[in-house]
Amino acid sequence: MKKIYYGAAYYPELWDMNIVEEDIPLMRDTGINTVRMGEFAWSRMEPREGEIDLSFFVKIIRKLKDNGIDTVFCTPTPTPPIWMSHNHPERMHVDQDGILMSHGARQHICTNNGYFRERVRIIVEAICKEIAPLDGVIAWQIDNEFKCHVAECYCSHCRVLWHEWLKKKYETIENLNRLWGADIWSEAYLDFDQVPQPLATPFMHNSSLSTSYKLFSRETTSEFAAMQAGIIHKYSKAPVTHNTMRSFAVDNSQLFSSLDFASFDDYPDCDNYHEMLFNYSIWRNVFDKPFWVMETSPSHNGCLDGRWMSKTHRPGYLAVEALAAVASGAEGFSHWLWRQQRAGCEQIHGSVISSWGKPTIGYEEVKKTKAVFNKIESIIADTVPVKGQAAVTYSDYASVFLSVENVGSPGYSQLSREIYDTFVAAGIRAEFLMEHVDPVSCKFLMTPYMPAIRDEYLQKAIRFVENGGIWLVGPMTGYRTCEHTVHTDAGLGRLDELAGVTTEIVFPSNGAEIVLSSMGMEAGAAYYTALFAPKTAESKGFVIDGIGKGLSFLTEHSLGKGKIVLLGAQPDGRRGRTMLQAIVKHYAQEAGIKESCKTSDGTVSIVRKNDSEKFIFFINMDGKGGKFFVEKGFVDAFTGNSISAGWNELAVYGFAVVKSCTPAIL
Amino acid sequence: MKKIYYGAAYYPELWDMNIVEEDIPLMRDTGINTVRMGEFAWSRMEPREGEIDLSFFVKIIRKLKDNGIDTVFCTPTPTPPIWMSHNHPERMHVDQDGILMSHGARQHICTNNGYFRERVRIIVEAICKEIAPLDGVIAWQIDNEFKCHVAECYCSHCRVLWHEWLKKKYETIENLNRLWGADIWSEAYLDFDQVPQPLATPFMHNSSLSTSYKLFSRETTSEFAAMQAGIIHKYSKAPVTHNTMRSFAVDNSQLFSSLDFASFDDYPDCDNYHEMLFNYSIWRNVFDKPFWVMETSPSHNGCLDGRWMSKTHRPGYLAVEALAAVASGAEGFSHWLWRQQRAGCEQIHGSVISSWGKPTIGYEEVKKTKAVFNKIESIIADTVPVKGQAAVTYSDYASVFLSVENVGSPGYSQLSREIYDTFVAAGIRAEFLMEHVDPVSCKFLMTPYMPAIRDEYLQKAIRFVENGGIWLVGPMTGYRTCEHTVHTDAGLGRLDELAGVTTEIVFPSNGAEIVLSSMGMEAGAAYYTALFAPKTAESKGFVIDGIGKGLSFLTEHSLGKGKIVLLGAQPDGRRGRTMLQAIVKHYAQEAGIKESCKTSDGTVSIVRKNDSEKFIFFINMDGKGGKFFVEKGFVDAFTGNSISAGWNELAVYGFAVVKSCTPAIL
Amino acid sequence: MKKIYYGAAYYPELWDMNIVEEDIPLMRDTGINTVRMGEFAWSRMEPREGEIDLSFFVKIIRKLKDNGIDTVFCTPTPTPPIWMSHNHPERMHVDQDGILMSHGARQHICTNNGYFRERVRIIVEAICKEIAPLDGVIAWQIDNEFKCHVAECYCSHCRVLWHEWLKKKYETIENLNRLWGADIWSEAYLDFDQVPQPLATPFMHNSSLSTSYKLFSRETTSEFAAMQAGIIHKYSKAPVTHNTMRSFAVDNSQLFSSLDFASFDDYPDCDNYHEMLFNYSIWRNVFDKPFWVMETSPSHNGCLDGRWMSKTHRPGYLAVEALAAVASGAEGFSHWLWRQQRAGCEQIHGSVISSWGKPTIGYEEVKKTKAVFNKIESIIADTVPVKGQAAVTYSDYASVFLSVENVGSPGYSQLSREIYDTFVAAGIRAEFLMEHVDPVSCKFLMTPYMPAIRDEYLQKAIRFVENGGIWLVGPMTGYRTCEHTVHTDAGLGRLDELAGVTTEIVFPSNGAEIVLSSMGMEAGAAYYTALFAPKTAESKGFVIDGIGKGLSFLTEHSLGKGKIVLLGAQPDGRRGRTMLQAIVKHYAQEAGIKESCKTSDGTVSIVRKNDSEKFIFFINMDGKGGKFFVEKGFVDAFTGNSISAGWNELAVYGFAVVKSCTPAIL
Repeated sequence: MKKIYYGAAYYPELWDMNIVEEDIPLMRDTGINTVRMGEFAWSRMEPREGEIDLSFFVKIIRKLKDNGIDTVFCTPTPTPPIWMSHNHPERMHVDQDGILMSHGARQHICTNNGYFRERVRIIVEAICKEIAPLDGVIAWQIDNEFKCHVAECYCSHCRVLWHEWLKKKYETIENLNRLWGADIWSEAYLDFDQVPQPLATPFMHNSSLSTSYKLFSRETTSEFAAMQAGIIHKYSKAPVTHNTMRSFAVDNSQLFSSLDFASFDDYPDCDNYHEMLFNYSIWRNVFDKPFWVMETSPSHNGCLDGRWMSKTHRPGYLAVEALAAVASGAEGFSHWLWRQQRAGCEQIHGSVISSWGKPTIGYEEVKKTKAVFNKIESIIADTVPVKGQAAVTYSDYASVFLSVENVGSPGYSQLSREIYDTFVAAGIRAEFLMEHVDPVSCKFLMTPYMPAIRDEYLQKAIRFVENGGIWLVGPMTGYRTCEHTVHTDAGLGRLDELAGVTTEIVFPSNGAEIVLSSMGMEAGAAYYTALFAPKTAESKGFVIDGIGKGLSFLTEHSLGKGKIVLLGAQPDGRRGRTMLQAIVKHYAQEAGIKESCKTSDGTVSIVRKNDSEKFIFFINMDGKGGKFFVEKGFVDAFTGNSISAGWNELAVYGFAVVKSCTPAIL
Repeated sequence: MKKIYYGAAYYPELWDMNIVEEDIPLMRDTGINTVRMGEFAWSRMEPREGEIDLSFFVKIIRKLKDNGIDTVFCTPTPTPPIWMSHNHPERMHVDQDGILMSHGARQHICTNNGYFRERVRIIVEAICKEIAPLDGVIAWQIDNEFKCHVAECYCSHCRVLWHEWLKKKYETIENLNRLWGADIWSEAYLDFDQVPQPLATPFMHNSSLSTSYKLFSRETTSEFAAMQAGIIHKYSKAPVTHNTMRSFAVDNSQLFSSLDFASFDDYPDCDNYHEMLFNYSIWRNVFDKPFWVMETSPSHNGCLDGRWMSKTHRPGYLAVEALAAVASGAEGFSHWLWRQQRAGCEQIHGSVISSWGKPTIGYEEVKKTKAVFNKIESIIADTVPVKGQAAVTYSDYASVFLSVENVGSPGYSQLSREIYDTFVAAGIRAEFLMEHVDPVSCKFLMTPYMPAIRDEYLQKAIRFVENGGIWLVGPMTGYRTCEHTVHTDAGLGRLDELAGVTTEIVFPSNGAEIVLSSMGMEAGAAYYTALFAPKTAESKGFVIDGIGKGLSFLTEHSLGKGKIVLLGAQPDGRRGRTMLQAIVKHYAQEAGIKESCKTSDGTVSIVRKNDSEKFIFFINMDGKGGKFFVEKGFVDAFTGNSISAGWNELAVYGFAVVKSCTPAIL
Repeated sequence: MKKIYYGAAYYPELWDMNIVEEDIPLMRDTGINTVRMGEFAWSRMEPREGEIDLSFFVKIIRKLKDNGIDTVFCTPTPTPPIWMSHNHPERMHVDQDGILMSHGARQHICTNNGYFRERVRIIVEAICKEIAPLDGVIAWQIDNEFKCHVAECYCSHCRVLWHEWLKKKYETIENLNRLWGADIWSEAYLDFDQVPQPLATPFMHNSSLSTSYKLFSRETTSEFAAMQAGIIHKYSKAPVTHNTMRSFAVDNSQLFSSLDFASFDDYPDCDNYHEMLFNYSIWRNVFDKPFWVMETSPSHNGCLDGRWMSKTHRPGYLAVEALAAVASGAEGFSHWLWRQQRAGCEQIHGSVISSWGKPTIGYEEVKKTKAVFNKIESIIADTVPVKGQAAVTYSDYASVFLSVENVGSPGYSQLSREIYDTFVAAGIRAEFLMEHVDPVSCKFLMTPYMPAIRDEYLQKAIRFVENGGIWLVGPMTGYRTCEHTVHTDAGLGRLDELAGVTTEIVFPSNGAEIVLSSMGMEAGAAYYTALFAPKTAESKGFVIDGIGKGLSFLTEHSLGKGKIVLLGAQPDGRRGRTMLQAIVKHYAQEAGIKESCKTSDGTVSIVRKNDSEKFIFFINMDGKGGKFFVEKGFVDAFTGNSISAGWNELAVYGFAVVKSCTPAIL
């Protein structure tokens, strides 16, 4: 990594040029060295169909570069201009209630619309021709936060594409009927044209239909991204990304397959700092290269709707949030936004400069952050993050299944966060790997909440096990086919055989009277539970009372050099969380993984290294001050003074970087 | 009753024939001797318009019969196939928000649509011709759970029928305007064609309009059922039923008038066992013949929406639930469903066999249930239930009024359940009689929550009183006309004179400061309260403080050999429940009704008899074990050993059947 | 004021003439001397298009007048008849979800529809011609509760008017784009025709668009009222009003500009009596003449929807509610309604007479009220209310901004009520002045929750200050432009300079860690906070910890003979309420305003005077009895007996009127 890009979203198209002239010295004062631009500026670039003029942005990019500020340039496709939408209801996005979107806000046109796609091709190509050659354009962002406001579109053009997608996938309607079990409730179709979009119906749609429509929609979004990336790649060597988020209606594995690096947006308040750390553990693993925090607030979130206002960061927080990002592998850290919106619907949102040109709450925090970046930049440039050897699969495909059938759970996003918290509590550093990432460098892999396992993933996991890994499968994994039906061969399909068990019963266990016992602990079972009769497997957790008494919920089975551990139940409640931590820790340790560095709660450790040195960043994230523990042999990375072995103190939002050159510790 | 039909819903059309071959021995193993089939299989029976082929079902029915298993066959009308709905929006159900249903789920076509009705006639007649002659078809079910997912339809064809219905009922628009008080808010119509369906309007529609539309809708549903039953009756001697439920948007009195026996579906969890007992007390009284529990889960409820998942029954519960049903008068007890759905939206629902052919949680419970049936079958066959002499009217007509104007109450279904609970707490066995049932064999009749009393009902009640019955009228009865307006002659219309009172004031009493006093107790008043000045009546309950101080809320008045007791208030809260229990008990006892057998809480008694013997079934329903009290002279019905007079113990989910041959006790 | 009009809403068109004959003696018995009529009777007046016949109402008005009962006559425009709506979807109101209203309820036709407007002109003119000349018609009411059920209409005719309104206001689309900041999100329009109505869009609409649409809608409603008033003024000398309410989607300042006196409706229960007192403090200040309480229940609120049922007034409350109204400046006090609705959707609502002609709960209360009126009428006739010298601006314009952007607050209506409560707790009598009212007779003016300050208002406030007033500006005032954007010159625009401060930061402070200190107290800050660096101002309140530490939230600045006090924060929670009371009290006292008369909680004082006497009405409002304190020199206004100096007792719902003739006290 060459340098730390510290940035902000910038909308010069909304301001007079004299304001831009004011902004640049303020940016220099704060130390911001990058801006992101263009993502909502389509009407400025092409005020009337075909009248494209990018000279304004060319001028701004040059002026910024003259002042040492680089640019991430974006395609403006989330906000098609009025000339595209006015009097064209057939182009508009239609939501699940069948409601047609009006012009306004963002994402109001269906991204699958043919005319829209054509105009996108034209504007993106025009941008590439003019902007790509400019000095200072270091990266590209496609669109902005795909599907952050909308999910699947139900317009009539999407219906046509849907039927084509189905025909391509299933070939004959008989196949579809059979695989979806569409004889149920006389749903069976005589022709692909008859398959409905899952709009309002008296009760629920068939799960296969609902899941397929979501997969179809995600695929078209990925394809739309690939189309844009394809154009940019023709004209530019700068890498392409998209600013995504866990909660959007996209498949990130698929989406990033045509892109070059990962970036994300998130806006947790300062008390929810683990949300940011969780994100770092996901996005640094999408590619084997640095990621960007493309948007986060310098102070607080906010828009016209007061329910979405967040509390303002405590002074001192921003710098450690950013430090943790960069230490974890971020190359860029960018704020939303530079100058407060004076109009629109996000006037309340935190910024660096107010609409009237004054430093805001965040201004000094940004300067503090820059000072931290300056202090650590050489260490960062010279090292790479040391990743954990425990992996957890993070799957947007699984997320679709749990959105169609949540079996009483709070949904994939929250469940995943709880798994992250479980690893933190267990003291094990976990990497969250998108489904396409091979866990080849890990020793322990957990696959929770994946109702349907695709064959490609299963093969990867089997290889992982055969090569010596421990694979913890569950909870709530494998009980559905990829068509979102129930297996008819065995309770968990192929998993039964692989894990050496017979799945006896699968049932909803919220509120059920059942006692699980494992790791010397007892707990109830939440959500949806599978219980096993071990065949060649060994049981490590039993039901000791209630439904399924005597059956197993946790089993081990050797395969090649490794082991498949099947976890059929989600241990419930406070006692359940402790049991799950114990299970995770037990198998991580069995796989040879050590605990992370010791710190007090609210303080975290992040490790980096180069060929000869190891650096540990200890950072107080909770604003209460904290402690960290080091063995002998570490020195302060800045002063070279040696650090006392044992516990050391950190100030409120303080941090320490310690270094070891001892090969043994390294 | 010849035998106990123990059954399950079966969907062979969803499985390969080899699975059917697997199922039959398993059914025999569990003891299931009946299946219900066909209700969702229209696309299997008629995959294309007019291509009807029922040979599959003929084959299955024969195969089952060969294995000793009878069939309840259903018409498949809740799930019209795609060839009927595709490209025919005018046939689809339209909900109260004006939203057109898409194909999928069930009940998506308007049951009043002409083309649909024609196709129903054709398929039902075809089914009758082929299926009716088969050995093994013991009964018919029409459709499935009418209006469980939808309520009134607002399609344009329904608008036409609505206008015809109004014209037939009111003859002239002037009549309608006058009876509805349609001059209010200038709603008055010039022609029947102008009367709207009660779709969105800025505030509420006229109560007469809303209520009439619901009555119209219920009438068309009943008529649809009668049309199907008429066809079946032409071809088959087997009796016809429909699997209804209290909460559906139907009028069960009306609906069952063309059918032959009652059946219902319900899915309470094991802690809510009183819900099942309440159902038995309703459905055994619709006809003077045994009823069926047509659907209940062997273990738990569930579908894609996790909010509708229920906890799984505790082991041991199922057998006593079923025992109580049969002792109460059920001839059939049938599970939903035999083999877990592999597709659709109810994969999570409890079943006897899993999708992969394994016994589920419920399997052993089903076997236990069968063992209980075997044990009691001869007693059941030889006796009939002894019904209580206290009756409560259960009226779906009243329910419509309370859905339009709930006066702050939780609605009819919940209020009725609370009345059931009141009788249980008072130790009085109550029969819940649909409005059409004559309480002729009872001594005490309660009519709660019936805002409008139809003349036919009133005449029946008057005859009941004149012949010596005690009629407890209220709470919340009689304050509206049958047009859902307020009486203009007297506060409770004809009731005032019949009960010998003047209704002085009627007002909403939730939160009002008012103290009722009766039966030596005091309480507030909930919902909607009528207060009386007795004329020829005698007051038995006064307002002693607050609004209406000095007026009566409970009065008695003799009529013929009996007595009308008017209850104008719903005593509120915990103290109110106790007061209402005391009132109910007082008048039941005055009518000469004795308390039920003594048991501990959570244990119930059900009485059966024949010409010479009386049997009492004591059943522990709460899974905590219990006690029952018997007088001298009872023997164990199975062993003939005498039972100690006094308290006897029951195990967890245990039961005892005791028998008396002493005429005095009988 | 000549007399006290004690009235009730009357609907003779819904009853037979013999009922009317019954009603009149009952009215005389209760003492009711006025009825309001006609507001929903369009179909009775004009049953078919053009067939207007008002003879019925002429007859009723004459008959009433013969019995000493005056009439307020209403235009029937909230309930257009079926001949106007049937088969004319293009005339119907369309709500924000795009849903077309069906006939029924009220306000179902768009009040901007051209045909509707024409029919309104015709019926209003016909009414004027026939009714205006009648003896007994003392006032007119236009329509009924404008926009109580609906807000903005989104029909296609409104779209046309919207575009015209925009064109008139902004002249060029470039102006609109610039002022709205419409370049944001590429929203910029090429033509006025393209500006959408703010219907469904994936995220929020631009605040300028949303606010403008609401202002447009309010303007058309005011214009509709003015059109009707214009016709009436041509034919009648009787004054015109409209029965409004704080919560409706209208701009009352604008609405009343074409009317002659203020009236309002409200239905709080007896424990929320301050809601009525708050209303009196608003509506008596709209005009410099008496107002009417046009609708309030004699007992309780209620309709088919049980959620809107209110508890019934405690006996004795009604008379003191009415006494407080009249003492505060009401000339009329009118109940909704005389005879219980027998049909429609408000059958449950409190009335004076039941549908069957019996006195209801309210009857005796009405008689008690009349007795109080009789007792005080001569005092009232001879005096005028003494208004407070502290004023608070009440702005429906501000309310629009807070409905579009509530910054986490409970909205304008609730916030205003809290300010009223603050003044009550501080012991300062406040007058609430609609934005158009000049506070010229006051010494202290508070302007809370006015995000955008219009120039006309600002000039008025500046004059007020220059002439010696103290102007307390805030909280949450001035942070937006009138286009609902952020200022770009200074944080609070012109206020910064006027108040001698620089607004440093503006941020959402809900949950933020910040400590305000002022008046010797400390508190957090709620909602949205502006912090200042004083320039020429003096700080009177600081942030002593957390975000913005050291900045001011309360500053004073002299201007002319007066002072601008800027309050940038809403002190939060219980401690914040106390701080705000202290601030209000401090500046009111500095302005020379004395505390109100001393009373115990739940008892209030209202002052009236004439040239030589001062009367104080002490009224126990909470039904618990109370105490009041008087100096020496007061006598009982009825008996002439002197009142002991010091504390005196009041009975439950009791009152005393004391009189002073001492000029010093006067």
